[in-house]
Amino acid sequence: MRQLPKEKLIYLGDTRRCPYGPRSEEEVRRFTWQMVNHLLEHNIKMLIVACNTATAYTLEELQENLSIPVIGVIQPGARAAIKVSQNKRIGVIGTEGTIDSNAYPHVLKSIDQTIRVNALACPLLVPMVENGLLEGEAAEDIVARTLAPLKAMNHIDTLILGCTHYPLIKNLIQNEMGSHIQVISSGEETAREASLILAYHGSLESGGGHSVHEFYTTGDVDKFRTVANSWFDEPVLVLKLAELEHVKSSAY
Amino acid sequence: MRQLPKEKLIYLGDTRRCPYGPRSEEEVRRFTWQMVNHLLEHNIKMLIVACNTATAYTLEELQENLSIPVIGVIQPGARAAIKVSQNKRIGVIGTEGTIDSNAYPHVLKSIDQTIRVNALACPLLVPMVENGLLEGEAAEDIVARTLAPLKAMNHIDTLILGCTHYPLIKNLIQNEMGSHIQVISSGEETAREASLILAYHGSLESGGGHSVHEFYTTGDVDKFRTVANSWFDEPVLVLKLAELEHVKSSAY
Repeated sequence: MRQLPKEKLIYLGDTRRCPYGPRSEEEVRRFTWQMVNHLLEHNIKMLIVACNTATAYTLEELQENLSIPVIGVIQPGARAAIKVSQNKRIGVIGTEGTIDSNAYPHVLKSIDQTIRVNALACPLLVPMVENGLLEGEAAEDIVARTLAPLKAMNHIDTLILGCTHYPLIKNLIQNEMGSHIQVISSGEETAREASLILAYHGSLESGGGHSVHEFYTTGDVDKFRTVANSWFDEPVLVLKLAELEHVKSSAY
Repeated sequence: MRQLPKEKLIYLGDTRRCPYGPRSEEEVRRFTWQMVNHLLEHNIKMLIVACNTATAYTLEELQENLSIPVIGVIQPGARAAIKVSQNKRIGVIGTEGTIDSNAYPHVLKSIDQTIRVNALACPLLVPMVENGLLEGEAAEDIVARTLAPLKAMNHIDTLILGCTHYPLIKNLIQNEMGSHIQVISSGEETAREASLILAYHGSLESGGGHSVHEFYTTGDVDKFRTVANSWFDEPVLVLKLAELEHVKSSAY
């Protein structure tokens, strides 16, 4: 919204089935395609897979099968890390799924095979953020224990936040790792790459203003609206994705 | 070379006719097309116009007329600035040509029309860098005098180095502006966008190593080689672009 203020966003959060991190590849792929098919009904001109786990498992097949540009959150973070890292030792933290998929090392090394990657699965951080534990001693303690293995090695100069939840605790992570570590937030980097790809296709919105953004959730609308209103300056439209009701039930 | 280590670079520096900054639009366009036509003979897969003035005057017509991706240095710097600016007040420094062309405000406002741009032509900085005046009191003094009008306004939070010479004095500029100002270096940002566009086209080099980079200059080869060798870890191939001899003579 900040980097592309003229564009209309149609956001679909699979809140009900979140997190994807611990799920199997088959399940993540099936859920992601369900989400994508709903978004395609809105005549979107670009698709952003704003979840690292879903990107790791589905980006390539989405790019092969859709006629619109598809961007994930892994490549932008990887490119930003390569831009800033001086010693070519890059850390990545993410969910078990993202780390197990090996997606970040794969992308980083496909660009520069001499880069050394230290990847660390952080299963506690998503539940911590989901429960609103964003500051204070308990939060600092969890972050410190989680990052200890990465910190002990003491040689990365750049750390990629490889999960869309982590920017909410970026300060905690930065403090724990130290100010000499450059912390990369995939979300900001992805918005920038979306901006370039839209410009490259000549499909940046040129009009004066956007239509109202639409936020869909598969979960609790009121809870979602409360969070959305606390984040955004103006009220946003939050809608229930009712069509997924039966899918959700069967998935549990 | 750092962000895309597998790619082979063919660099052509119009050293003999540099700087382009104070030249007329017609002259910059003519010179740029001469350079581009030479590069096209090398069967390049992507063209980067690594000069702000040339980008300002020729990017659109190059993109329209060439079948390969063409990237300039203005859009990457603009997008990076939008990514980091919090107060939407962005400063740009560049040559007279770049600033007069209004290219940065145009690109910035095409993405977000509420952005306010303070553009300042800095005619002294290129000659200063060209003469190797990169540090010391005299250099600090020139930078301070040059940036005074921008500093006096005291409200930008991001400054784009809108000339490829300025990153060589980035520290001087950062010190003068203060640590609260984010200084954007177009070169690094352009390399990153080149990386994305190559990946997007599936034309990133996948092999183990690159061929030897080739650097061509229209000016003095020995001088160029001395600078190149002082910058790069390994010796690079520096060649004279002899074919431009007659063009150069007639241009002076």
